[in-house]
Amino acid sequence: MELIQKNRTRTVTGNQDNNARRVPAALGEHGGNIYKIAQELGISEKNLVDFSASINPLGISDRVRDVIKQELDGLVNYPDPDTRKLKEAIAMHHGIDSETVICGNGSTELIYLIPRALKPSKVLVSSPSFSEYERACTLNRELRITNYELRKEDGFRIAPDGFGEAIRGCDMAFLCNPNNPTGGLLKKDDVLAIAEAAEREKCFLVVDEAFIDYDPGESVIGSVEDFSYLIVLRSMTKFYALTGLRIGYGVVNKEMLARINEYKEPWTVNHLAQTAAVAALEDEAYAARTMDMIQEEKRYVEKRFHEVGIEFIPSAANYYLLKIKDAESAVIELRKKGILVRDCSNFRGLDNSYIRVAVKSREQNEMLIKEMAGL
Amino acid sequence: MELIQKNRTRTVTGNQDNNARRVPAALGEHGGNIYKIAQELGISEKNLVDFSASINPLGISDRVRDVIKQELDGLVNYPDPDTRKLKEAIAMHHGIDSETVICGNGSTELIYLIPRALKPSKVLVSSPSFSEYERACTLNRELRITNYELRKEDGFRIAPDGFGEAIRGCDMAFLCNPNNPTGGLLKKDDVLAIAEAAEREKCFLVVDEAFIDYDPGESVIGSVEDFSYLIVLRSMTKFYALTGLRIGYGVVNKEMLARINEYKEPWTVNHLAQTAAVAALEDEAYAARTMDMIQEEKRYVEKRFHEVGIEFIPSAANYYLLKIKDAESAVIELRKKGILVRDCSNFRGLDNSYIRVAVKSREQNEMLIKEMAGL
Repeated sequence: MELIQKNRTRTVTGNQDNNARRVPAALGEHGGNIYKIAQELGISEKNLVDFSASINPLGISDRVRDVIKQELDGLVNYPDPDTRKLKEAIAMHHGIDSETVICGNGSTELIYLIPRALKPSKVLVSSPSFSEYERACTLNRELRITNYELRKEDGFRIAPDGFGEAIRGCDMAFLCNPNNPTGGLLKKDDVLAIAEAAEREKCFLVVDEAFIDYDPGESVIGSVEDFSYLIVLRSMTKFYALTGLRIGYGVVNKEMLARINEYKEPWTVNHLAQTAAVAALEDEAYAARTMDMIQEEKRYVEKRFHEVGIEFIPSAANYYLLKIKDAESAVIELRKKGILVRDCSNFRGLDNSYIRVAVKSREQNEMLIKEMAGL
Repeated sequence: MELIQKNRTRTVTGNQDNNARRVPAALGEHGGNIYKIAQELGISEKNLVDFSASINPLGISDRVRDVIKQELDGLVNYPDPDTRKLKEAIAMHHGIDSETVICGNGSTELIYLIPRALKPSKVLVSSPSFSEYERACTLNRELRITNYELRKEDGFRIAPDGFGEAIRGCDMAFLCNPNNPTGGLLKKDDVLAIAEAAEREKCFLVVDEAFIDYDPGESVIGSVEDFSYLIVLRSMTKFYALTGLRIGYGVVNKEMLARINEYKEPWTVNHLAQTAAVAALEDEAYAARTMDMIQEEKRYVEKRFHEVGIEFIPSAANYYLLKIKDAESAVIELRKKGILVRDCSNFRGLDNSYIRVAVKSREQNEMLIKEMAGL
């Protein structure tokens, strides 16, 4: 035990040798693996309604679809290893300097690249949170993980002061905002206060904003140049539905970016991802339509959760953590109806009484709620 | 100096700390970066004829094009992290067990993943050869590189006995067959003899067959289950022109594959790459057309090289290493005509008198030769 605060922290030691058993979180434990489940059920993946991954139910925009078709002749060339045009589009979109941007094969590439490049020795992660942070850190390095535990009694909320204190003695910290799978959102001022605490500690603060698109005003992406140790990650997998193409990015100050780039592998972001992402960022009508639709569906879904007595954690993202009696049996029963939800029992800090469900179309949301009410 | 054989070997030490300067081969030094050069020249990349990357001049097949268009609705889902269908197609194509296959975001992902997972302490690489082997090994680990130097006097050929002896004391070796950038091909029996030497030494032998498609009979991909330490890498970037989509694979025995998979990052192979690759492997007419066309163009190009007095190294691949007076000025002069060739002076073991050129269409090959004759 490293620190006993309002929220408990716990220390685990990263793998220190070849012993594969000590590497956490093997592949295939996340949501969204429709291919594996379809095979198990002996059906086509097209017959599944997937609430286990939280993707924009509108699918890719028509503009993105057209651009991909137009760019097929370009596949004969290597993708731009420097992702120039995409970096410029991202910079324009956020009003930031393109020289502070790094693109990845999904933000997952960057989650792995950052600890590899910056070589932390003690890392703070929250629980429950996205498991890849801990796996990325412990896979290749001897280091210690300190765990900031979110508690059901506090609505799984991160206390900015508590997180800021837990950073003490750490040289890297991951803050998922909104948090996955709980959906809790820290305000921009709170994140900046944590960034200041990290700065004092010379601790790299990686703020993963993969699901912040519905609250863009709370993003700290415009503040990275004010800090030496702040890194912001964004995903285009969820809001823009570019899930299958793999595209994410990070924003960091130039000096730190140079250190990270020394470790970057070449050609990781494919050509169609680069061109599709540029088109997606320019498509403001699609973004507006998505915002309206998701906000409306969230209001509807919350009303229906109340009506049928489903306990949910308030969420700023396009998913909800639901408290239920028996996650495992719910997953099995729903799967029989072709409905996939995320069993959260393998999140550190959660037990067999939580599932995560995405917000989808009205018809699909209603289908899920009806089936859940009948469980 | 580690070993003095027929071919000299040399030892360099991998980076041992955070110091970025000691990490070799930064991004952007390879061929095929048409985006950077087009920007420098102030023209569209479509106006460049790129001989610096060795890609099938036929471009992607119509069948691949159709499959990509059909699969756009699938982008809303995560790619299959286990690449099931693609592994089965690869296994079928080569007549091997799908449980010995691993797919990557280009074979480049695997070149980095393998040393990360298998943690060698002394690695044998050839020079000149593909620079990413050395970068992949030294980027994250303290280790020693032993260098097997190919000599102009021997036509840059690898001597199987010499390479087998150079393996002594190493726990990983990279063998590029045919070699890049020289095009020299070792016969299957010679590679198997090296694999046996590696087996005796308990040295992982990574045979990179990225350019072996024109001599499939010399591949050792069907032999991995006979060895504990043999890994074969293949690329679909060159022969199938899936360059911009990123797809490669490795074949290794199941026990070693399990060790490598413990270190694999999730969702690295995008959905369109997976589906396009399956379609490409099934398109036998495209493969036959490619073989015929490249073989015919190689005969033509070699005849023309003789006629205009261009010195080339005999090659089994779809590229040639050319000996010229001044690579740097040739690159500059050709670039003025919109022609890109690979300046090979940054390959360890080559100086400013080599360029590498791809075999392209008749019209393009003739354009290159005419311009080179006029230099």
